[in-house]
Amino acid sequence: MTSRRAFIQQTAWAGVGLSLLSASNVFATAKEKVRLGFIGVGLRGQNHLELALKRTDVDVVALCDIQQRMMDAALQLVKESGKPSPQIILEGNYGYRKLLERKDIDAVIISTPWEWHTVQCLDAMNAKKWVGCEVITGMTVDECWQLVDTSEKTGMPLMMLENVCYRRDVMAVLNMVRQNLFGELIHLQGGYQHDLREVKFNDGQKPYGGGAEFGAKGFSEAQWRTQHSVVRNGDLYPTHGIGPIAMMANINRGNRFTRLSSFASKARGLHEHVVNVGGKDHPNTKIDFKLGDVVTTMISAANGETFLLQHDTNLPRPYSLGFRVQGSKGIWMDVNKSMYIEGQSAKPHQWEEAKAWLEKYDHPLWKKYGSDASGAGHGGMDWFVLNAFVESVKRNVTPPQDVYDAVTWSAITPLSETSIAQGGTAVDFPDFTRGKWEKRKNEFALDDRY
Amino acid sequence: MTSRRAFIQQTAWAGVGLSLLSASNVFATAKEKVRLGFIGVGLRGQNHLELALKRTDVDVVALCDIQQRMMDAALQLVKESGKPSPQIILEGNYGYRKLLERKDIDAVIISTPWEWHTVQCLDAMNAKKWVGCEVITGMTVDECWQLVDTSEKTGMPLMMLENVCYRRDVMAVLNMVRQNLFGELIHLQGGYQHDLREVKFNDGQKPYGGGAEFGAKGFSEAQWRTQHSVVRNGDLYPTHGIGPIAMMANINRGNRFTRLSSFASKARGLHEHVVNVGGKDHPNTKIDFKLGDVVTTMISAANGETFLLQHDTNLPRPYSLGFRVQGSKGIWMDVNKSMYIEGQSAKPHQWEEAKAWLEKYDHPLWKKYGSDASGAGHGGMDWFVLNAFVESVKRNVTPPQDVYDAVTWSAITPLSETSIAQGGTAVDFPDFTRGKWEKRKNEFALDDRY
Repeated sequence: MTSRRAFIQQTAWAGVGLSLLSASNVFATAKEKVRLGFIGVGLRGQNHLELALKRTDVDVVALCDIQQRMMDAALQLVKESGKPSPQIILEGNYGYRKLLERKDIDAVIISTPWEWHTVQCLDAMNAKKWVGCEVITGMTVDECWQLVDTSEKTGMPLMMLENVCYRRDVMAVLNMVRQNLFGELIHLQGGYQHDLREVKFNDGQKPYGGGAEFGAKGFSEAQWRTQHSVVRNGDLYPTHGIGPIAMMANINRGNRFTRLSSFASKARGLHEHVVNVGGKDHPNTKIDFKLGDVVTTMISAANGETFLLQHDTNLPRPYSLGFRVQGSKGIWMDVNKSMYIEGQSAKPHQWEEAKAWLEKYDHPLWKKYGSDASGAGHGGMDWFVLNAFVESVKRNVTPPQDVYDAVTWSAITPLSETSIAQGGTAVDFPDFTRGKWEKRKNEFALDDRY
Repeated sequence: MTSRRAFIQQTAWAGVGLSLLSASNVFATAKEKVRLGFIGVGLRGQNHLELALKRTDVDVVALCDIQQRMMDAALQLVKESGKPSPQIILEGNYGYRKLLERKDIDAVIISTPWEWHTVQCLDAMNAKKWVGCEVITGMTVDECWQLVDTSEKTGMPLMMLENVCYRRDVMAVLNMVRQNLFGELIHLQGGYQHDLREVKFNDGQKPYGGGAEFGAKGFSEAQWRTQHSVVRNGDLYPTHGIGPIAMMANINRGNRFTRLSSFASKARGLHEHVVNVGGKDHPNTKIDFKLGDVVTTMISAANGETFLLQHDTNLPRPYSLGFRVQGSKGIWMDVNKSMYIEGQSAKPHQWEEAKAWLEKYDHPLWKKYGSDASGAGHGGMDWFVLNAFVESVKRNVTPPQDVYDAVTWSAITPLSETSIAQGGTAVDFPDFTRGKWEKRKNEFALDDRY
């Protein structure tokens, strides 16, 4: 019983040399600076903007949004940075196309509502821009295919800015996976378990809480994100959970997802929240939210691993992405901050604190850039994901998370919707690489470059 | 949006009065002593025997097994107890039928290999014995139906001796569920995550480890349990995980399971273990174990809850039944020993230690009998499950876990096998109550009686 995965793992590491070789080729055409445009400078876009403004290898040349309030906040960040004023585009939903017309822009960062991602990514690639897009790239399987087809046709890379792949503990565990501490990977878990009730409802002034409003009467994410909970039932936000474990299991690189089944619980949390915050006569108490409070998804992979994802955003609960990485020699879980490695952990059948393991296997990227990332959003991981995108553009290399990852991770949402609508029926997972997964190599975070 | 569950919950508590009333009726026919026969006195049967011998309300009148070594150990227990010597039956696989012929036996405790449970339960009920059977009652859906039909036809109750329903923390959480601390239940998890490699393989002398033998060359559970991992792929041991959470969600009592889907990972753990322990040339290295190392199962329920079960017995990992009980107001998880109850926990979005909650809501049964149970197997819960069976026989009342629970929990195995064999297809869950679930009341552990 040979281990196909171990083989792939070795070749992935062996690929470092190859990758350095190709890197030296592209350095001939490498840029020193990236000229960036921002499509969407709401709260998330402002996070990216602030990090970009701190970089000496980025020029922020244009900002686009549809709301004066958000643009004012973004311009304040520019002012504080002392950098030159960018072009300001405030011309409604399709104003971003004006930004894309500028030939001097290399790349765009898209941080808009999910439903705008596909069209904006497509337009940007067709305009020959590199695309760094916030998570959820493709709300339907058809949109996912459009993104793949357009990236392949135009030759323009799309990187989904999935930051959790760069979380410090996650990268240490990736390091452990690659050094075979867990043996052959068997089962992996992740999810998005985050009480978003005060994100989905607010008072129309503050971004978080204080009211039971959403849509036109809400502010920030409540303006658009909540509507997805009204009309859709599926794992609406799979990428933070699946991205890191997909990378560990070499999905799209010698492995691929094959089948998926999802179950959704009843929907109670959002209604109860509206009643509690807005009162029993609030108009939003009449809404029948379709999104089940807890959505559970199982996925199988070509190399025999199973994946479990949980989406849980409507109930009172502490935050947890629920990671579990389990192989033939050991297991890590983040909810109890624990590790067990056979033959190495102090006592058989006993958890030990993960802390010492995570420090010992701290990833080279974090060792090198941890101080640069310090203070950046979400514990520093936001710095790494933007850095990876900027470095990819500069070096003219495919981003470490590419278009196939972007759509594979995002497609979990529509696939889970289909499965749930069909009573949990298992559905086939599309192969967005069209067979290329068999020979592709994993180059994500192979060393300390980006 | 009224809560059907809250209604059922209230009526379940209201049912206490009714239950006392019927109890007073049956006291007319209550027995002071139960005359018990033991079918199977291997290691598990010896646990039950030892507890039975300590009771003043039980006479142990016959023991049956197929192995002299196990019988000798059982008789040593009898001797140490100072109780009268029981009849000894050592007459091969069907010797138990001789035990069932005795008219003076009220009830039997069955602790034999899984594959013998159904026929022995059927024979015992047909012989008009109360049946307390170790877990897994019915290895196929057809066997489950046979058990239901025979119990209904003969009027003889079958209680599966699922001890984890009586675990102290589980009962405290059940108490919290009934006092509405979690609000309306939304999602529940459990499982059997226990590294059984040294149970499945031993040296033929010791029950645990020391070799790579099983079947005819193994000893104790390895003689029969391991073979299930050779030929079956499914959640082979669902009852410890599902029993407690099914009771909390009133399954078969105002609620029922509706659909199930299972995914299995690849199988690596047992082969690697045989190689590590027996060497790469050991004959058992040639076996192709069918059981996936991690089997994940989702189940939906009529009242809209979702359930997640995990079976994980082939890999190095710390023991955990992986319980999670989540409602509209709070969540408990056992792997991180944590609780969060909205508005009551100290800090929003922060776990707190479950300990104080579990002590505060310690179940009345544990308060009353905790000292009796002290020292009994599996942290005391073995005492409670035997006590519940003996008390049910004495009072002539349906056991708190009845034949419908026994087969509903056990049927998860064959249903998961079917689902996995069909690529994760969701399958319908049979209604073993034939509609009675709608009106049945939950009488499990309603007070401090049994």
